[in-house]
Amino acid sequence: MPFITSANVACGFHAGDPLWMQRTVSAAEKMGVAVGAHPGLPDLIGFGRREMKISPEEARNYVIYQVGALQAFTRDGRLQHVKPHGALYNMGAASESIARAVAEGIKQVDDRLILVGLVGSAWIKVAQELGLRVAREIFADRALNPDGTLVPRSQPGAVIENPEEVVVHSLKMVLEEKATASNGQEITVQADTICLHSDTPGAVALARMLREKMEAAGVEVVPLGKFL
Amino acid sequence: MPFITSANVACGFHAGDPLWMQRTVSAAEKMGVAVGAHPGLPDLIGFGRREMKISPEEARNYVIYQVGALQAFTRDGRLQHVKPHGALYNMGAASESIARAVAEGIKQVDDRLILVGLVGSAWIKVAQELGLRVAREIFADRALNPDGTLVPRSQPGAVIENPEEVVVHSLKMVLEEKATASNGQEITVQADTICLHSDTPGAVALARMLREKMEAAGVEVVPLGKFL
Amino acid sequence: MPFITSANVACGFHAGDPLWMQRTVSAAEKMGVAVGAHPGLPDLIGFGRREMKISPEEARNYVIYQVGALQAFTRDGRLQHVKPHGALYNMGAASESIARAVAEGIKQVDDRLILVGLVGSAWIKVAQELGLRVAREIFADRALNPDGTLVPRSQPGAVIENPEEVVVHSLKMVLEEKATASNGQEITVQADTICLHSDTPGAVALARMLREKMEAAGVEVVPLGKFL
Amino acid sequence: MPFITSANVACGFHAGDPLWMQRTVSAAEKMGVAVGAHPGLPDLIGFGRREMKISPEEARNYVIYQVGALQAFTRDGRLQHVKPHGALYNMGAASESIARAVAEGIKQVDDRLILVGLVGSAWIKVAQELGLRVAREIFADRALNPDGTLVPRSQPGAVIENPEEVVVHSLKMVLEEKATASNGQEITVQADTICLHSDTPGAVALARMLREKMEAAGVEVVPLGKFL
Repeated sequence: MPFITSANVACGFHAGDPLWMQRTVSAAEKMGVAVGAHPGLPDLIGFGRREMKISPEEARNYVIYQVGALQAFTRDGRLQHVKPHGALYNMGAASESIARAVAEGIKQVDDRLILVGLVGSAWIKVAQELGLRVAREIFADRALNPDGTLVPRSQPGAVIENPEEVVVHSLKMVLEEKATASNGQEITVQADTICLHSDTPGAVALARMLREKMEAAGVEVVPLGKFL
Repeated sequence: MPFITSANVACGFHAGDPLWMQRTVSAAEKMGVAVGAHPGLPDLIGFGRREMKISPEEARNYVIYQVGALQAFTRDGRLQHVKPHGALYNMGAASESIARAVAEGIKQVDDRLILVGLVGSAWIKVAQELGLRVAREIFADRALNPDGTLVPRSQPGAVIENPEEVVVHSLKMVLEEKATASNGQEITVQADTICLHSDTPGAVALARMLREKMEAAGVEVVPLGKFL
Repeated sequence: MPFITSANVACGFHAGDPLWMQRTVSAAEKMGVAVGAHPGLPDLIGFGRREMKISPEEARNYVIYQVGALQAFTRDGRLQHVKPHGALYNMGAASESIARAVAEGIKQVDDRLILVGLVGSAWIKVAQELGLRVAREIFADRALNPDGTLVPRSQPGAVIENPEEVVVHSLKMVLEEKATASNGQEITVQADTICLHSDTPGAVALARMLREKMEAAGVEVVPLGKFL
Repeated sequence: MPFITSANVACGFHAGDPLWMQRTVSAAEKMGVAVGAHPGLPDLIGFGRREMKISPEEARNYVIYQVGALQAFTRDGRLQHVKPHGALYNMGAASESIARAVAEGIKQVDDRLILVGLVGSAWIKVAQELGLRVAREIFADRALNPDGTLVPRSQPGAVIENPEEVVVHSLKMVLEEKATASNGQEITVQADTICLHSDTPGAVALARMLREKMEAAGVEVVPLGKFL
């Protein structure tokens, strides 16, 4: 937590439970880390990583439920952002109807919330249509296709495992708004936030290194709510 | 719903799911019925009716989670009241530490919420100590011990099954603030709200009859939030 | 139960719990109805009706778990058959890798079990490849495409709602091995078992009527295990 | 696993899922470790460690379900033993009606199964009454009251944390059938099996050390099924 500015907190559907949520929110608030909801599919066994054919109405209500539940643990009843988790994140990136339903759910709970979605995806489009603040997200350790989408985890090379390469890839996106796609092509990537997974081996060291390098390069690292 | 003024909505732990919660809240709002949360123990198989030895910290966070989740489905982000469900209701009636933890949870989510608890129980005491509005509850169809507590469901005669007796018993408590206890003794009962179970056979007819009789007797039946 | 010969019992993943399973198995055994497992996707909220992108390995182990659990409630530790439920049934009808994984799971638990699958689907093919007994299933109240597959529930006319039409449709399939497809074409349908849903309105009357009509036409209605 | 002879496998109610169960059973079978079921209360959030007021009928059916499910993952459809988990273990140690219901459930699934229960508790008594094989269990790292029961975890000194003391305490029970109780008194302890928790820090080193010391002292360490 000392190296990040925004945290995504699971809300009980794919992981997390009320006691753990309370402790995580409390720890984040103490360290000045902005809290966001990380709502997922109702799939504890699969950690929310398996696509489910839910309706937009189901998606909207699952998000309202989870964001409302997490929000209640905060000091002032407000979250900074919502980032859909796992398969729900991927489903909404590809489907406008799912993305719109989720964005509507977020807006119903609190229309000041920031939706965090994959840069260039349906998330960004529908959030803008609905007048919801949106943060375009990139991933520190994921390879990109030439069209800017993520190389799927099922393909070799999808995850960049060498920490030094992760730093080079990340800094290039942050400082130059560019990336080298999986086919070697240079592409443009304009993002607002960069995602680190807390369950990657070496996550803490990587977070520290990235933060130090970015600050050394003059990047001011602040919570989303400060500039969106 | 046409005959009641306040509804208790399950929040997913012992029953209910996001889609059903959204529909129930929406229906209540359309009919002018005030909405309250009905948080329960995390026990879907047992419908929250089996006592669990949870800690006060667990009780507090389970309530924050569920009340927050339901609140997010309302039009204006506000509920009228919270009534703990099933075994949690009974545990808090008997244990000040559980009742206090639940009341603290309710207060953290919204300190304007009304706690609905069994008349004469620990719920009333701790709510008053915490400065939380509280509604003293009686049950239309439950027999009372001479000390005003409910005859446990495990004992014969715990539930009054004859609808006409239910009406007589209820009207006496509402109009005279009195009841005939299980041993025949007359006792005083001062309450703010009267509970009907929607899953009792004949519940709708009973609700209609009770409402009509009370109104015929000059009782104004209004949501809790109007007078507490 | 008096009108059927084989019952499909949910195993806790999409519906059902141990107490209910025990009572259902016990009631079926008392009435001489053969018991089968009805394993589903781990989706209580959606009643197992929503497709989930699970791996064949997950499918196999979900089925082993559920069939083993139900089997333990029987008098002699044996079930007659296994019929996958809801979305899992449809996924396996269309995907050989899912159907094969499920069939392997069934075979591991007890290689004498009968797999019940949609006539003409991947279920039949993989069961035969694995040497598992298989029952080709038809549905009393579902319209058929010209290729013999079910008209999806999302299309109008998918479910035949008029009980008399259901009986005519069912008897034609059973007595003549023929059906009129949704486009009016006559098609051949060779099946071993006919499915009734216990949650359809009028299910009991329909079951009685179908059984009577079939017996009047000389059909001997017996559990699958008697002839497969 | 190389240092133990019997493994207790969670069955999905307090922990575990079908995929993990399949892998654990398969690993145990490959290493020649005998497999037992570790059925628990339906309480994923609380890891089955919180007492629930369930009926004997519920307890029996929860155990049938879980033992049946795990059994289906074994190579030959047979488990060696059943050891109730967490709060269920403690509830049955103190309550004959719960212990009897669980033992009946085990017997229904397979009457050759060994019930593992706390030495001197209701588990031992009811298993003997029902004619079920039973293993009297001791714990490597738990302090004992003068009457042979475990010092509750809520009391200081309940868990012996120094590994060398654990070894001394364990060897004394195994080799001399004696223990020094929490008040310093020497007591007699006659047991068949000794429990190690896999989630204790240093569990693997401790398991290795205990096994080596016991074998050096001439103890033959074998699965329960070999001598009960």
